Amino acid sequence: MTITVAIDCMGGDHGPGVTVPAAIEFVRDHADVHVILVGLTDSIVPLVGDAAIDRVSIRHAAEMVSMDESPSMALRNKKDSSMRVAVNLVKNGEADACVSAGNTGALMAISRFVLKMLPGIDRPAICGVLPTITGHVHVLDLGANVDCSPEHLLQFGIMGSSLVSALEHRDRPTVGILNIGEEEIKGNDVVKRASELLWESGLNFVGNVEGDGLYKGAADVIVCDGFVGNVALKTSEGLAQMLATFLRQEFRRNLFTKLAAVIALPVVKRFKNRVDHRRYNGATLLGLKGIVVKSHGSADAFGFAYALRRAAEEARSGVLARISERVAQQQPLQETA
Amino acid sequence: MTITVAIDCMGGDHGPGVTVPAAIEFVRDHADVHVILVGLTDSIVPLVGDAAIDRVSIRHAAEMVSMDESPSMALRNKKDSSMRVAVNLVKNGEADACVSAGNTGALMAISRFVLKMLPGIDRPAICGVLPTITGHVHVLDLGANVDCSPEHLLQFGIMGSSLVSALEHRDRPTVGILNIGEEEIKGNDVVKRASELLWESGLNFVGNVEGDGLYKGAADVIVCDGFVGNVALKTSEGLAQMLATFLRQEFRRNLFTKLAAVIALPVVKRFKNRVDHRRYNGATLLGLKGIVVKSHGSADAFGFAYALRRAAEEARSGVLARISERVAQQQPLQETA
Repeated sequence: MTITVAIDCMGGDHGPGVTVPAAIEFVRDHADVHVILVGLTDSIVPLVGDAAIDRVSIRHAAEMVSMDESPSMALRNKKDSSMRVAVNLVKNGEADACVSAGNTGALMAISRFVLKMLPGIDRPAICGVLPTITGHVHVLDLGANVDCSPEHLLQFGIMGSSLVSALEHRDRPTVGILNIGEEEIKGNDVVKRASELLWESGLNFVGNVEGDGLYKGAADVIVCDGFVGNVALKTSEGLAQMLATFLRQEFRRNLFTKLAAVIALPVVKRFKNRVDHRRYNGATLLGLKGIVVKSHGSADAFGFAYALRRAAEEARSGVLARISERVAQQQPLQETA
Repeated sequence: MTITVAIDCMGGDHGPGVTVPAAIEFVRDHADVHVILVGLTDSIVPLVGDAAIDRVSIRHAAEMVSMDESPSMALRNKKDSSMRVAVNLVKNGEADACVSAGNTGALMAISRFVLKMLPGIDRPAICGVLPTITGHVHVLDLGANVDCSPEHLLQFGIMGSSLVSALEHRDRPTVGILNIGEEEIKGNDVVKRASELLWESGLNFVGNVEGDGLYKGAADVIVCDGFVGNVALKTSEGLAQMLATFLRQEFRRNLFTKLAAVIALPVVKRFKNRVDHRRYNGATLLGLKGIVVKSHGSADAFGFAYALRRAAEEARSGVLARISERVAQQQPLQETA
């Protein structure tokens, strides 16, 4: 079976200079993969050369969604944008998944409009992967929804659990809910009610996870509303950058520390590689009738290739069918409750 | 002028074994400081010995609030707890500030009941300090309030700004609001409305700060609701622990890396010292008619001493008067708006 991935080559901070080389590399590494490069032919063709040409197609799209464009304007006015055309390819079955490093809001709006939601799911959620002490964790929502109801959080739990089931061939991944542990409060009303729904859901729910639990492997899937999830993600990015800066500064302090840096280099490199955020690039817009993966806008070719890999893996493992099945199963449970 | 700090010696994971030595050290280091050690005399006296005895008093309190006790139970039933007695000492003017490493919810409930709120402030907020690339930032609320109104966030801004003004002798500290940058949304309604109030407030408001801005020195004070603030704080703790674990593992991998570790040790030590969370220990319960500082429950003597220092500095710099003044100034502004 061939997996076809449509790529919005114009999206992201770097555009085709990053997306096209990543796509070529990706095709070379995966024998079962076909890519459709979407965007300005003039920008793309020179970068493709004659590489792996039998599994690389190009689809011209005359327009581009810019990074700061309003999603509603992008949706209304850019019907021939590379982003829109890539999503259309998923809709009409030419592609099994699409990937964009472009404007998140526009990608959400276009995907939702073109692909529609899966039955039983009210809103799409952005699901990303973070490293943990024991492996990794899927977290959703990372910013698509700023005001979630308990029912939305339940749906995130179902979708996240189905995703991990499909991708990692595991029967009952654990699901936790992000909460705070202050003694007086133990969370707001939405989180409390969502917890009740999750306990009753039949999912392998493990209850509350505090912020530090995110990186401790407290659960395979952690649900939260998009505001909180986005803050947690960005805060982590900021802290990691600060720590890296401080470590660099200390190693550059004087001749002795520079010597120490040379000697410690292989160790520091292994460490950096282990927590390299590029290896976690690629967040899924879950809940749509199609696979859409969002790459970080600033991703380089190495990082962008991880988003492509993620899209292909989701297509291969039948994530959508798994979610639909699980949601269908949920409905009667809810109704009899 | 002498500053008197009342210390709940029984609170925290370690109790008097940590709090008393930290208090003695603190008195030794600060000539203008007097401490009142509150708790079981039998536990405290042996630890004091004859150290700096002229500026150390002991106040017996027969009860203790346990770390997992319900705040309302602690408030109702433990009138002679070390925590309650320490807060009472602030109330009746015997102490200028109090410090506890105990149960946060109970400390909040007791402080609010005993000390009452400053006029014009609806709710107390937990204000902590985090390191940034350029210095440090005061963040509030870190977990006292899970559902904040725009007006509460405005009050947090006023209190935080007054605190930094007083502590750091700065006229107009910058104030930001924690928000998310996803294109479609740009925050929830509460944050949007709070931003409007902050723009009109006369504070040196700089607008939205995303999660990564927390560690970039984007503002001197950052306000957020307690749920989000607590998640950001705990997520940071978890990430820092994970990175430290990974770095340790890499340095212990084999003989060569262990050798590299020995050589890099002074550098790594300087780095660790720079981001040592113990140096940021001590969060203020702002908004009360009295200074109450909460230490991390797990703090060691080194960390607990930082919380004591913080309490003394706030008393010295007249933080309460500064906040009251600023709030009074705000009222007419609000009424004419």
